[in-house]
Amino acid sequence: MPVPNDLLDAVQFDDDGLVATIAQDHDTGDVLMMAYMTAETLKETLETGRMVYWSRSRQAVWRKGETSGNVQRVQAAHLDCDGDVLLFQVEQVGDAACHTGHRSCFYRRVERDGSLVHDGTKVFDPDEVYGA
Amino acid sequence: MPVPNDLLDAVQFDDDGLVATIAQDHDTGDVLMMAYMTAETLKETLETGRMVYWSRSRQAVWRKGETSGNVQRVQAAHLDCDGDVLLFQVEQVGDAACHTGHRSCFYRRVERDGSLVHDGTKVFDPDEVYGA
Repeated sequence: MPVPNDLLDAVQFDDDGLVATIAQDHDTGDVLMMAYMTAETLKETLETGRMVYWSRSRQAVWRKGETSGNVQRVQAAHLDCDGDVLLFQVEQVGDAACHTGHRSCFYRRVERDGSLVHDGTKVFDPDEVYGA
Repeated sequence: MPVPNDLLDAVQFDDDGLVATIAQDHDTGDVLMMAYMTAETLKETLETGRMVYWSRSRQAVWRKGETSGNVQRVQAAHLDCDGDVLLFQVEQVGDAACHTGHRSCFYRRVERDGSLVHDGTKVFDPDEVYGA
Protein backbone atom coordinates (compact mmCIF):
# COMPACT_ATOMS: atom_id res chain seq x y z
CA MET A 1 0.00 0.00 0.00
CA PRO A 2 1.41 3.47 -0.82
CA VAL A 3 2.57 5.91 1.84
CA PRO A 4 -0.41 7.78 3.35
CA ASN A 5 0.57 11.32 2.49
CA ASP A 6 -2.55 13.23 3.58
CA LEU A 7 -2.19 11.96 7.11
CA LEU A 8 1.56 12.38 7.32
CA ASP A 9 1.22 15.97 6.11
CA ALA A 10 -1.48 16.68 8.69
CA VAL A 11 0.25 15.17 11.73
CA GLN A 12 2.23 17.65 13.82
CA PHE A 13 5.17 15.65 15.11
CA ASP A 14 6.95 17.19 18.12
CA ASP A 15 10.61 18.20 18.32
CA ASP A 16 11.55 14.55 18.91
CA GLY A 17 9.58 13.45 15.83
CA LEU A 18 6.85 11.86 17.97
CA VAL A 19 3.06 12.06 18.04
CA ALA A 20 0.97 11.07 21.08
CA THR A 21 -1.24 8.09 20.26
CA ILE A 22 -4.21 6.79 22.23
CA ALA A 23 -5.41 3.20 21.81
CA GLN A 24 -9.08 2.61 22.61
CA ASP A 25 -10.92 -0.73 22.62
CA HIS A 26 -13.16 -0.50 19.55
CA ASP A 27 -15.80 -2.65 21.19
CA THR A 28 -16.08 -1.41 24.77
CA GLY A 29 -14.72 2.12 24.34
CA ASP A 30 -12.22 1.55 27.17
CA VAL A 31 -9.06 3.60 26.81
CA LEU A 32 -6.29 1.00 26.90
CA MET A 33 -3.07 3.02 26.75
CA MET A 34 -1.29 6.07 25.42
CA ALA A 35 2.11 5.92 23.78
CA TYR A 36 3.99 7.58 20.92
CA MET A 37 4.56 6.98 17.22
CA THR A 38 7.12 8.26 14.76
CA ALA A 39 6.27 8.89 11.10
CA GLU A 40 7.85 5.52 10.31
CA THR A 41 5.90 3.53 12.93
CA LEU A 42 2.69 5.33 11.92
CA LYS A 43 3.31 4.27 8.31
CA GLU A 44 4.00 0.69 9.40
CA THR A 45 0.84 0.74 11.56
CA LEU A 46 -1.32 1.76 8.60
CA GLU A 47 0.40 -0.62 6.23
CA THR A 48 0.20 -3.68 8.48
CA GLY A 49 -3.00 -2.90 10.40
CA ARG A 50 -1.19 -3.55 13.69
CA MET A 51 -0.18 -0.91 16.20
CA VAL A 52 3.53 -0.05 16.07
CA TYR A 53 4.78 2.50 18.59
CA TRP A 54 8.10 4.16 19.38
CA SER A 55 9.42 3.28 22.82
CA ARG A 56 10.88 6.43 24.36
CA SER A 57 12.56 4.46 27.18
CA ARG A 58 14.20 1.94 24.84
CA GLN A 59 14.55 4.39 21.92
CA ALA A 60 13.40 1.65 19.58
CA VAL A 61 10.51 0.55 17.39
CA TRP A 62 7.90 -1.16 19.55
CA ARG A 63 5.73 -3.63 17.67
CA LYS A 64 2.99 -4.00 20.27
CA GLY A 65 2.46 -7.65 21.19
CA GLU A 66 5.68 -8.90 19.58
CA THR A 67 6.73 -10.54 22.88
CA SER A 68 3.42 -11.11 24.63
CA GLY A 69 1.35 -11.95 21.56
CA ASN A 70 -1.13 -9.28 22.64
CA VAL A 71 -1.15 -7.38 19.35
CA GLN A 72 -3.57 -4.55 18.66
CA ARG A 73 -5.43 -4.77 15.34
CA VAL A 74 -6.44 -1.40 13.92
CA GLN A 75 -10.18 -0.98 13.40
CA ALA A 76 -10.29 2.78 12.89
CA ALA A 77 -8.11 5.84 13.36
CA HIS A 78 -8.77 9.52 14.02
CA LEU A 79 -6.64 12.67 14.16
CA ASP A 80 -7.42 15.54 16.53
CA CYS A 81 -8.17 19.15 15.60
CA ASP A 82 -4.61 20.46 15.82
CA GLY A 83 -3.00 17.32 14.47
CA ASP A 84 -0.84 16.42 17.45
CA VAL A 85 -2.79 13.45 18.85
CA LEU A 86 -3.88 10.23 17.14
CA LEU A 87 -6.72 8.06 18.42
CA PHE A 88 -6.85 4.45 17.24
CA GLN A 89 -9.79 2.15 17.83
CA VAL A 90 -8.27 -1.33 18.12
CA GLU A 91 -9.06 -4.95 18.73
CA GLN A 92 -6.90 -5.93 21.70
CA VAL A 93 -5.80 -9.53 21.15
CA GLY A 94 -5.28 -11.43 24.43
CA ASP A 95 -7.50 -8.90 26.17
CA ALA A 96 -4.59 -7.14 27.92
CA ALA A 97 -2.88 -3.97 26.69
CA CYS A 98 -0.68 -3.29 29.70
CA HIS A 99 2.74 -4.83 30.33
CA THR A 100 1.64 -5.29 33.97
CA GLY A 101 -0.95 -7.81 32.77
CA HIS A 102 -3.90 -5.48 33.17
CA ARG A 103 -6.53 -5.02 30.53
CA SER A 104 -5.91 -1.26 30.47
CA CYS A 105 -2.89 0.74 31.61
CA PHE A 106 -5.32 2.98 33.52
CA TYR A 107 -5.93 0.51 36.35
CA ARG A 108 -5.35 3.00 39.19
CA ARG A 109 -8.37 5.08 40.10
CA VAL A 110 -7.85 8.49 41.68
CA GLU A 111 -10.08 9.20 44.67
CA ARG A 112 -11.28 12.72 45.44
CA ASP A 113 -8.69 12.98 48.26
CA GLY A 114 -5.91 12.13 45.78
CA SER A 115 -5.34 8.55 46.98
CA LEU A 116 -4.93 5.82 44.37
CA VAL A 117 -7.08 2.68 44.37
CA HIS A 118 -6.53 -0.40 42.23
CA ASP A 119 -9.61 -1.10 40.12
CA GLY A 120 -8.37 -2.79 36.96
CA THR A 121 -8.74 -6.33 35.74
CA LYS A 122 -5.54 -8.39 35.68
CA VAL A 123 -5.57 -10.69 32.66
CA PHE A 124 -2.13 -12.31 32.81
CA ASP A 125 0.91 -12.66 35.07
CA PRO A 126 3.74 -10.67 33.46
CA ASP A 127 6.41 -12.97 34.96
CA GLU A 128 4.97 -15.86 32.98
CA VAL A 129 4.76 -13.91 29.74
CA TYR A 130 7.99 -11.89 29.78
CA GLY A 131 10.04 -14.09 32.15
CA ALA A 132 10.76 -13.30 35.82
CA MET B 1 -10.08 19.88 50.31
CA PRO B 2 -6.42 19.08 51.14
CA VAL B 3 -3.77 18.64 48.50
CA PRO B 4 -3.91 15.12 46.98
CA ASN B 5 -0.42 13.95 47.83
CA ASP B 6 -0.63 10.30 46.77
CA LEU B 7 -1.51 11.29 43.25
CA LEU B 8 0.96 14.14 42.97
CA ASP B 9 3.75 11.85 44.16
CA ALA B 10 2.76 9.19 41.62
CA VAL B 11 2.45 11.44 38.57
CA GLN B 12 5.59 11.64 36.45
CA PHE B 13 5.59 15.20 35.13
CA ASP B 14 7.83 15.76 32.09
CA ASP B 15 10.73 18.19 31.82
CA ASP B 16 8.27 21.03 31.24
CA GLY B 17 6.28 20.05 34.34
CA LEU B 18 3.39 18.69 32.27
CA VAL B 19 1.39 15.47 32.24
CA ALA B 20 -0.64 14.29 29.24
CA THR B 21 -4.34 14.17 30.12
CA ILE B 22 -7.13 12.45 28.20
CA ALA B 23 -10.76 13.50 28.65
CA GLN B 24 -13.34 10.81 27.91
CA ASP B 25 -17.12 11.19 27.96
CA HIS B 26 -18.16 9.25 31.07
CA ASP B 27 -21.45 8.27 29.51
CA THR B 28 -20.64 7.31 25.90
CA GLY B 29 -16.96 6.43 26.29
CA ASP B 30 -16.06 8.79 23.42
CA VAL B 31 -12.57 10.23 23.70
CA LEU B 32 -13.13 13.99 23.61
CA MET B 33 -9.64 15.50 23.69
CA MET B 34 -6.10 15.24 24.99
CA ALA B 35 -4.26 18.13 26.57
CA TYR B 36 -1.79 18.77 29.40
CA MET B 37 -1.93 19.60 33.09
CA THR B 38 0.63 20.98 35.52
CA ALA B 39 0.71 19.96 39.18
CA GLU B 40 -1.15 23.16 39.96
CA THR B 41 -3.92 22.69 37.39
CA LEU B 42 -4.26 19.04 38.43
CA LYS B 43 -4.73 20.15 42.03
CA GLU B 44 -7.28 22.76 40.96
CA THR B 45 -9.08 20.13 38.85
CA LEU B 46 -9.43 17.78 41.83
CA GLU B 47 -10.37 20.57 44.21
CA THR B 48 -13.04 22.12 41.96
CA GLY B 49 -14.22 19.02 40.08
CA ARG B 50 -13.79 20.87 36.77
CA MET B 51 -11.07 20.17 34.22
CA VAL B 52 -8.28 22.75 34.30
CA TYR B 53 -5.49 22.30 31.75
CA TRP B 54 -2.26 24.10 30.92
CA SER B 55 -2.27 25.64 27.45
CA ARG B 56 1.12 25.06 25.87
CA SER B 57 0.42 27.53 23.05
CA ARG B 58 -0.69 30.32 25.39
CA GLN B 59 1.57 29.24 28.29
CA ALA B 60 -1.31 29.88 30.66
CA VAL B 61 -3.83 28.13 32.88
CA TRP B 62 -6.76 26.95 30.77
CA ARG B 63 -9.99 26.58 32.71
CA LYS B 64 -11.87 24.52 30.15
CA GLY B 65 -15.19 26.16 29.25
CA GLU B 66 -14.38 29.53 30.82
CA THR B 67 -15.17 31.31 27.53
CA SER B 68 -17.55 28.88 25.84
CA GLY B 69 -19.37 27.68 28.94
CA ASN B 70 -18.58 24.11 27.88
CA VAL B 71 -17.00 23.03 31.14
CA GLN B 72 -16.03 19.44 31.85
CA ARG B 73 -17.22 18.08 35.19
CA VAL B 74 -15.00 15.32 36.61
CA GLN B 75 -16.79 12.01 37.17
CA ALA B 76 -13.74 9.78 37.66
CA ALA B 77 -9.98 9.84 37.12
CA HIS B 78 -7.35 7.20 36.45
CA LEU B 79 -3.54 7.17 36.26
CA ASP B 80 -1.67 4.88 33.89
CA CYS B 81 0.90 2.22 34.79
CA ASP B 82 3.99 4.41 34.52
CA GLY B 83 2.33 7.52 35.88
CA ASP B 84 2.78 9.79 32.86
CA VAL B 85 -0.78 9.85 31.51
CA LEU B 86 -4.03 10.80 33.26
CA LEU B 87 -7.45 9.69 32.04
CA PHE B 88 -10.48 11.63 33.25
CA GLN B 89 -14.05 10.52 32.72
CA VAL B 90 -16.05 13.74 32.44
CA GLU B 91 -19.49 15.14 31.86
CA GLN B 92 -19.12 17.47 28.89
CA VAL B 93 -21.45 20.42 29.42
CA GLY B 94 -22.75 21.90 26.16
CA ASP B 95 -21.95 18.63 24.41
CA ALA B 96 -18.88 20.00 22.62
CA ALA B 97 -15.29 19.63 23.81
CA CYS B 98 -13.52 21.03 20.74
CA HIS B 99 -12.86 24.71 20.06
CA THR B 100 -13.91 24.05 16.45
CA GLY B 101 -17.44 23.35 17.71
CA HIS B 102 -17.20 19.60 17.34
CA ARG B 103 -18.29 17.20 20.03
CA SER B 104 -14.83 15.57 20.04
CA CYS B 105 -11.48 16.90 18.84
CA PHE B 106 -11.05 13.61 16.95
CA TYR B 107 -13.48 14.48 14.15
CA ARG B 108 -11.14 13.53 11.28
CA ARG B 109 -11.14 9.85 10.40
CA VAL B 110 -8.07 8.34 8.78
CA GLU B 111 -8.79 6.07 5.82
CA ARG B 112 -6.59 3.09 5.04
CA ASP B 113 -4.95 5.05 2.20
CA GLY B 114 -4.03 7.84 4.64
CA SER B 115 -6.66 10.32 3.45
CA LEU B 116 -8.65 12.24 6.08
CA VAL B 117 -12.44 12.27 6.13
CA HIS B 118 -14.64 14.48 8.29
CA ASP B 119 -16.94 12.36 10.43
CA GLY B 120 -17.59 14.35 13.59
CA THR B 121 -20.70 16.08 14.84
CA LYS B 122 -20.57 19.88 14.87
CA VAL B 123 -22.44 21.19 17.90
CA PHE B 124 -21.82 24.94 17.71
CA ASP B 125 -20.41 27.63 15.42
CA PRO B 126 -17.14 28.84 16.97
CA ASP B 127 -17.54 32.32 15.44
CA GLU B 128 -20.71 32.81 17.47
CA VAL B 129 -19.17 31.55 20.70
CA TYR B 130 -15.69 33.07 20.61
CA GLY B 131 -16.39 35.99 18.22
CA ALA B 132 -15.36 36.12 14.56
